[in-house]
Amino acid sequence: MTILQSIKEPEDIKNLSLKECSQLAQELRDEMITVTAKNGGHLASSLGAVELIIALHRIFDSPKDKFIFDVGHQAYAHKLLTGRQEKFNTLRQHGGLSGFTTREESEHDSFGSGHASNSVSAAVGMAQAADLNRQEYTSIAVIGDGSATGGMAFEAFNNASSQKGRLIVILNDNGMSISNTVGALDKLFANVRFNRGYYKASEKSRNRLYTNKLGRAIWDIGQKFKAAAKGLVMPTVLWEQFGFAYTGPIDGHNIAELEKAFKKVKGYNHKPVLIHVITQKGKGYEPAESDAVHFHGVPPCKNPGTCDDCNCTYSQMFSNTMAEIMRQDERVVAITAAMSEGYAMGELIKEFPERVFDVGICEQHAVTFAAGLATQGIVPVAAIYSTFLQRAYDQIVHDVALQNLPVVFAIDRAGIAGDDGRTHQGAFDVSYLNHIPNMIICSPKDVNELRHLLYTAVNSLCPFAVRFARGKDENPVKIDNMLQELPIGKWEELQKGSHIAIVAHGICVSQALKASTVLEKQGISVSVINARFIKPMDQEMLKQLAAGHQVILVAEENARSGSLGQNILDFLNTAGLLDTVKIDMIALPDNFIEHGAQNLLRRKYGVDSQSIVEKSCLLFNKENTENTREALK
Amino acid sequence: MTILQSIKEPEDIKNLSLKECSQLAQELRDEMITVTAKNGGHLASSLGAVELIIALHRIFDSPKDKFIFDVGHQAYAHKLLTGRQEKFNTLRQHGGLSGFTTREESEHDSFGSGHASNSVSAAVGMAQAADLNRQEYTSIAVIGDGSATGGMAFEAFNNASSQKGRLIVILNDNGMSISNTVGALDKLFANVRFNRGYYKASEKSRNRLYTNKLGRAIWDIGQKFKAAAKGLVMPTVLWEQFGFAYTGPIDGHNIAELEKAFKKVKGYNHKPVLIHVITQKGKGYEPAESDAVHFHGVPPCKNPGTCDDCNCTYSQMFSNTMAEIMRQDERVVAITAAMSEGYAMGELIKEFPERVFDVGICEQHAVTFAAGLATQGIVPVAAIYSTFLQRAYDQIVHDVALQNLPVVFAIDRAGIAGDDGRTHQGAFDVSYLNHIPNMIICSPKDVNELRHLLYTAVNSLCPFAVRFARGKDENPVKIDNMLQELPIGKWEELQKGSHIAIVAHGICVSQALKASTVLEKQGISVSVINARFIKPMDQEMLKQLAAGHQVILVAEENARSGSLGQNILDFLNTAGLLDTVKIDMIALPDNFIEHGAQNLLRRKYGVDSQSIVEKSCLLFNKENTENTREALK
Repeated sequence: MTILQSIKEPEDIKNLSLKECSQLAQELRDEMITVTAKNGGHLASSLGAVELIIALHRIFDSPKDKFIFDVGHQAYAHKLLTGRQEKFNTLRQHGGLSGFTTREESEHDSFGSGHASNSVSAAVGMAQAADLNRQEYTSIAVIGDGSATGGMAFEAFNNASSQKGRLIVILNDNGMSISNTVGALDKLFANVRFNRGYYKASEKSRNRLYTNKLGRAIWDIGQKFKAAAKGLVMPTVLWEQFGFAYTGPIDGHNIAELEKAFKKVKGYNHKPVLIHVITQKGKGYEPAESDAVHFHGVPPCKNPGTCDDCNCTYSQMFSNTMAEIMRQDERVVAITAAMSEGYAMGELIKEFPERVFDVGICEQHAVTFAAGLATQGIVPVAAIYSTFLQRAYDQIVHDVALQNLPVVFAIDRAGIAGDDGRTHQGAFDVSYLNHIPNMIICSPKDVNELRHLLYTAVNSLCPFAVRFARGKDENPVKIDNMLQELPIGKWEELQKGSHIAIVAHGICVSQALKASTVLEKQGISVSVINARFIKPMDQEMLKQLAAGHQVILVAEENARSGSLGQNILDFLNTAGLLDTVKIDMIALPDNFIEHGAQNLLRRKYGVDSQSIVEKSCLLFNKENTENTREALK
Repeated sequence: MTILQSIKEPEDIKNLSLKECSQLAQELRDEMITVTAKNGGHLASSLGAVELIIALHRIFDSPKDKFIFDVGHQAYAHKLLTGRQEKFNTLRQHGGLSGFTTREESEHDSFGSGHASNSVSAAVGMAQAADLNRQEYTSIAVIGDGSATGGMAFEAFNNASSQKGRLIVILNDNGMSISNTVGALDKLFANVRFNRGYYKASEKSRNRLYTNKLGRAIWDIGQKFKAAAKGLVMPTVLWEQFGFAYTGPIDGHNIAELEKAFKKVKGYNHKPVLIHVITQKGKGYEPAESDAVHFHGVPPCKNPGTCDDCNCTYSQMFSNTMAEIMRQDERVVAITAAMSEGYAMGELIKEFPERVFDVGICEQHAVTFAAGLATQGIVPVAAIYSTFLQRAYDQIVHDVALQNLPVVFAIDRAGIAGDDGRTHQGAFDVSYLNHIPNMIICSPKDVNELRHLLYTAVNSLCPFAVRFARGKDENPVKIDNMLQELPIGKWEELQKGSHIAIVAHGICVSQALKASTVLEKQGISVSVINARFIKPMDQEMLKQLAAGHQVILVAEENARSGSLGQNILDFLNTAGLLDTVKIDMIALPDNFIEHGAQNLLRRKYGVDSQSIVEKSCLLFNKENTENTREALK
């Protein structure tokens, strides 16, 4: 039996020797590497936090003490040490463990995670609750230096000392968020990282002087002076100004050193504590150490250390097309919020280092920065995932749409995004954009259309959102050489029938086409409409569809309230056309969508081709036979 | 002719003597005081920024140089100096000048404002654009210390030095946001404010020592040392770590001193500049100086210096009811993001100083702080205006609803909010909440129902939004002594008829009742339904309404996409009930709603009682006569 296998609950870790802890760390790493090679996942972050998590569980008492992991992708060791070993091989699989912390999964996950920068606010709340409830526990937020660039984290730091209760923030500083950490905060942390030698050297003088009171005074003043002179006083002063007691930097892979620091602050009640821990992303696994950006989210692959070719994903096509557009059009620039890897922007950045802006994890700034650029004739394309763009909803409303500025939103991971689960499913973007005046919203049916829609967007000089799916089209798509502008608000009739018109956008278009072949065999004559523009809608075509069909079925991967389907229904009702045509909808249910493979989720939540067939058969009282289900496989 | 009258454009200010500038400052203040006494407005902030704005226009060249005013409520002097004097008496009136900067209004308003903390991001964008476009201008953001607590501002500070172009940020530090500035950042600024004497005293020694090179070196080292020892090194080091050159603090009411500072940094190209300016909110008008919190937004009143009684506003009833609930229920706490005055929380804070949390201008933190509290059995009520809550959309989705935590959102200024205009109209909250799983959304028909819905919300232990209107009910409302829980998802039939059922929520219910009296006279038999729950809907009642009426008319003050009306239509369509009943909707149009009196806007945008009458008459082919219009007045 391995040491890891002997750990049934965190209590068991407390009895291990330091040597056994080292062994445990190795076993944790082995398990993570094995499982993520199979299931994918955020390996590098979790590898870097192994010793930190062991030490936390040895000194503090979860679940009485609250551990809150920012983003949560560094918490695999926490999962393995809190009774979830046996299920760990189900990581990120449907019905299995989530890739993030979730309250449903374990009492040791005191707060859910997924999006960056929220942990400190939650921890401040829990600490304050301890005071209100007259309870004794410590709330501990573990936040990476990348997440600390998010404005929300700053808001929490700024408020922490106003609240009561025991709060510890562990700044897990590995010098990179997902891409490299950007901006001034990073320079600040870098100062500390690069000057650890300075601190070590000082230690000797300190010990000499600290033997008497005068010496201590001299040393303290001297330290302040030198520190100020070198700008090294910064972290201490900064955090002290925020009302925190600061301690660090500490080697985050040295369990003994970590435990010493944790013991020192455990039970400290006077003000919040900031512990600055230096870790190495990918620690203990050579491919991840040397290329942590790539390994942040590991796609499943057969040979750990290599990755699938990513040609033809929507992300890749986005970046390829941006390069083409930017070569032709000087006005166009790209903005990413620490997701250059997710958008496959490597080559784009190489070609246009001055026109691609990575602002770090701060979607709010990204969008208003874009708005500022747009006032001056620049056409910025803000490349932000569907769920992360939720962070900038107000900026889209207030800074972009209200001023009618030509900012293009390239929204990746729209619709069902898969393994990352509830916090990452792009289920809401149509709903949170559809009611915003001046917005144009579209979604390409395939990677080729993504090219034309991007081109249309940058030439529209309007607030313009292009939402597209995670991953690849099911079948290879022919790519047009020439980029062309598509008429805004016009839909495309892909197939003409007379019984049912299936109106779909994005990835659902191919599902509709697939369904139509089955339905035609059932004797149902199907039109398939590519509703590439969600707003404005093609009202002319809608009238024709109403006149020429018995049923219109709208299919989309988005929540129902605020969807294209509801807007079509509203239009038909207002135009008095519901007497002539029936309408029905396929959309995501009013639930958060769990993690799992994309196609599995599409089946489960009723937005795949089979669902279209089933709904259509029902509408025409046709039997949906076993054969039709087979035909769709 | 006054000096102010002689200023047709900013160029004209440049020729004035300093003495004339003082005179101009006085004239600007007089004009602001006169007009805001009549029209209402953000007087105190604008009074504080008069000299700052004069000096800016004297040293820089608007519109070539870009002035970006955060929130924009301090920019009245800017309006008066940039060709808008003649229209200034139309401030905040429909069709007149906006209370904020807007790009449509003047080329001197280089960016729109209204919500806090966005100015630096916009300025960074404009500065970067200058570099991309090879143009020479300076982008100048003017941001208050209160707005600087918003995380978005931090994101921009953190990114500023990574971008190119000439950027100046003027920190207009008056020691308060709308309420008093909260948190650590304020302590930092306070250090500087309280220690200006220290700087002044040092000036003498400096002049002595600075006469030779050695003396200069000694003085500089000594300064650093003293500053470090006293923690005064902070602002300089902080901003330098952010990559800014820092200068200040400067007396923001001394035009000569301001000009000196601006000249020094004009044309400076190497890094962004932070100028720390100390001003006094309400400067030059005694009532506003001594009670700047109250005077932040001045309600129109006949005698400047006094204010209307605010009894019976929804805000007041909210705070009164919170006090009642908090007396009975220890679990309940209130959270505000610098809007304690807007929510009339004065007495509440006095009674429960430990259970009302003002976190400053940071809605994101406010919501996730609430979520953290909620995990530990506390029931937090987050009191945030409809449009400001847009800033926390992601936190509502990700931290509250996804975890199904019992956070109550008390959403004031929902629907048409009036004079503050497009950035403050609560037109979207139903749409941005309706698609979020687990959310309960309701809206009271009057202040009495607000009491019961708040009580229902805190006892529901669900994510729960209560949206309510700005201002008062049209008629006095009888107040129930006992608080009672209302059944979640159940509607109230206020009047029973047989032709048309008007389904309304919030302020529209009284409009519907008013309309019904006119319609009854026209021979149309009207049911009036108080759809107090927007989500979940009362499906049972909807079925009965469909069975018992020819038409259902839904009336609400919210955008149409994602509205209650669309969800009702969707339900009736799915339930196959549209064969038996017609449905129509009244909602806000797909435009940003301008500023103006609430009732004027309701009329203009078609959501008042007259609109309900007109729509109903149309539906029943009745003539909507002049008489009916008269009857509604």
